Amino acid sequence: MPKVSKRADKTIASPIRKFLPLALEAEKKGVHIYKLNVGDPDIPVPADFWKGLRSYKFKGVGYAPSPGIREHTQAWIQYYSTFGVKLEVENLLPTIGCAEAIMLSLLVMCDPGDELIVFEPLYSSYKSFATMAGIKLVPVTLKVEDNFELPSESFIRDRITKKTKGIVLVNPNNPTGTVLTDKEIRMVVRIVKSKNLFLLSDETYREIVFGVKPRSVFQYPEARKFGIVVDSVSKKFSGPGLRIGSIASFNKNIMWAILKFAMARLSAPTLEQHALIPLLKHPRKYTGPITAEYKRRKNVVYSALKKIPGVVCREPQGAFYIMAKLPLENAEDFVRFMLVKFRHNNKTVMVTPAEDFYITKGKGRSEIRIAYVLNTTDLNDAMKVFGAGLEAYTRMKSRK
Amino acid sequence: MPKVSKRADKTIASPIRKFLPLALEAEKKGVHIYKLNVGDPDIPVPADFWKGLRSYKFKGVGYAPSPGIREHTQAWIQYYSTFGVKLEVENLLPTIGCAEAIMLSLLVMCDPGDELIVFEPLYSSYKSFATMAGIKLVPVTLKVEDNFELPSESFIRDRITKKTKGIVLVNPNNPTGTVLTDKEIRMVVRIVKSKNLFLLSDETYREIVFGVKPRSVFQYPEARKFGIVVDSVSKKFSGPGLRIGSIASFNKNIMWAILKFAMARLSAPTLEQHALIPLLKHPRKYTGPITAEYKRRKNVVYSALKKIPGVVCREPQGAFYIMAKLPLENAEDFVRFMLVKFRHNNKTVMVTPAEDFYITKGKGRSEIRIAYVLNTTDLNDAMKVFGAGLEAYTRMKSRK
Repeated sequence: MPKVSKRADKTIASPIRKFLPLALEAEKKGVHIYKLNVGDPDIPVPADFWKGLRSYKFKGVGYAPSPGIREHTQAWIQYYSTFGVKLEVENLLPTIGCAEAIMLSLLVMCDPGDELIVFEPLYSSYKSFATMAGIKLVPVTLKVEDNFELPSESFIRDRITKKTKGIVLVNPNNPTGTVLTDKEIRMVVRIVKSKNLFLLSDETYREIVFGVKPRSVFQYPEARKFGIVVDSVSKKFSGPGLRIGSIASFNKNIMWAILKFAMARLSAPTLEQHALIPLLKHPRKYTGPITAEYKRRKNVVYSALKKIPGVVCREPQGAFYIMAKLPLENAEDFVRFMLVKFRHNNKTVMVTPAEDFYITKGKGRSEIRIAYVLNTTDLNDAMKVFGAGLEAYTRMKSRK
Repeated sequence: MPKVSKRADKTIASPIRKFLPLALEAEKKGVHIYKLNVGDPDIPVPADFWKGLRSYKFKGVGYAPSPGIREHTQAWIQYYSTFGVKLEVENLLPTIGCAEAIMLSLLVMCDPGDELIVFEPLYSSYKSFATMAGIKLVPVTLKVEDNFELPSESFIRDRITKKTKGIVLVNPNNPTGTVLTDKEIRMVVRIVKSKNLFLLSDETYREIVFGVKPRSVFQYPEARKFGIVVDSVSKKFSGPGLRIGSIASFNKNIMWAILKFAMARLSAPTLEQHALIPLLKHPRKYTGPITAEYKRRKNVVYSALKKIPGVVCREPQGAFYIMAKLPLENAEDFVRFMLVKFRHNNKTVMVTPAEDFYITKGKGRSEIRIAYVLNTTDLNDAMKVFGAGLEAYTRMKSRK
């Protein structure tokens, strides 16, 4: 039998999804699992999406143009103008979720063997896509104890080699829930400018910010030459199954390459592009209530975690994740314990062990990511179950 | 400004889509263009798709599971059973169109620098995906004069090097419209078996065959160890904008790698997976009338082409394309002439120049691909306009 490629072998399974079989097993036995592992929100897509879908008036569903259905692309442009970023239709291409936008960005920046600077912990799909594309991710480690702040400029510059093609920012951040400060962004822009690197800014969670305004790296004029911004409707409009995102750049060569890639894959889904037009045109109407709900949830999870002895975490400023360092050695073992052994009133909690969000071996073994994708009532109970589970696990370990 | 990657530079623009600006220009001036360039059929998706879509009962549109919505995956399995191929759900994963299935197949078979044997003319997206993935396509040239038949076994074997990882078949073929014979498939299976290579079989057009039954390489038991079959609903159910395809293999290592890739990109569109279930379960109900219509169209185009002096073509046995060698030197120049200069009762025809369907430099310069994606009345007129255009072009050239 022929062997699969080395890149196929090396690609990691999603840390978020790989414990699914254990969860299914528990559910078969009637256990209720609070799933705080996947960033798959329970909040429904705005009703205007369904209205938009019903307004599709053709009998056929042909390919959308590779650069997007014009009115859809224009709606993205209008969306960007709501925070002062003026794009032309040539500067943006709708993609199949942010996932595709990330993959195409990696391919446009790097040839096999090239390097990108990333900050870890890092959304794990980046690791998979980099492996698939033959690209080396060079990590700069951030720590929960330092509030996940970026290190000094010289520390980052020291990671740059002849093979470095760019720096990747995820802002607001998955999995840390941090929002970059103005100072941090200026520093990164300074580095890419002086080193002539690309700057990939993943702004999927732009709208989900607590106490600050939605922002983009494109608000920094100096970032425009170097920047690629990837985006998605998945989180801001709570419709991840729609598979619509976008990729934007002011650099014509980048957008021409992206268009060539996009022609090969033909098009993003036609019906969803059509139905999302009204949402993109009046974003705040929909994102306002969604963000308010996440803020309430954040408060529940953060205050519950703060009360658990030995847990180290920081208050998220955006997205719907929190990273926590637990008073244990192996979070993966703990996650398995929660799914296989622990039950509290026949309930348990599923979270994501964070080790796979790191590139550096051995990092993050005591850490987990919690996605607060349940309503506050469920979250309150889930955090109680979580606390009880952690106590039980610690007790069990100390007995051994 | 940083430079885009070499692979981005080398990726070709779609030959099918790159003349779109000229077409738009002509349309602005009120010219009617018969578009026989893109395989984007005018036939509407079956009404049961819309019924299926309306039966979606949730308010939210969450991620589908990475290995597909279970009932959708099972519907694919049922579809495969209609031609005697017995798959388990572990053997098939729904993809974002066949395009994604092709890209993932290339990544699972090859590392950067590896080679694949392909037959040219070849659907041009393969060239783009190979460039993006850093893979070298090694072409075996087929000729219209030989009815695009595969060459001898030894001829193909001579193309195999230490870097060869597999052989790619597109059957029924885009762009040639040929259907492989039993003898041809057996020969290729013999080669992959003796050389321990992968066999990627792109069966997107399986259902659109004239006078033969829908088939799969999986009907050959010996192909199962080596085979990867990619598929799509785009053509068989006339819904290319739905972006649903599939990838199947009996090889567990392949499917595990595909699942890992699929986890990184999260999921295929949720609504379309749901709505397509009834169609996949009773395919012939829908594909029968669609295929009958393409057969009528094929007859119109083929008989019209046969009457034009100097045109060399062969009768298609499947898909909805025909390749024709024209009595001229540069088909791209002719396509441009048709869009920019030629009008017949203020109408013209857009076809695809075939040079970019070849990998070998200089091949296919006199050839075009016609996609018969219009009704027979329009096609009849389009072929008249085409004939008149070819005559006018030839006259113009002979004057120079």
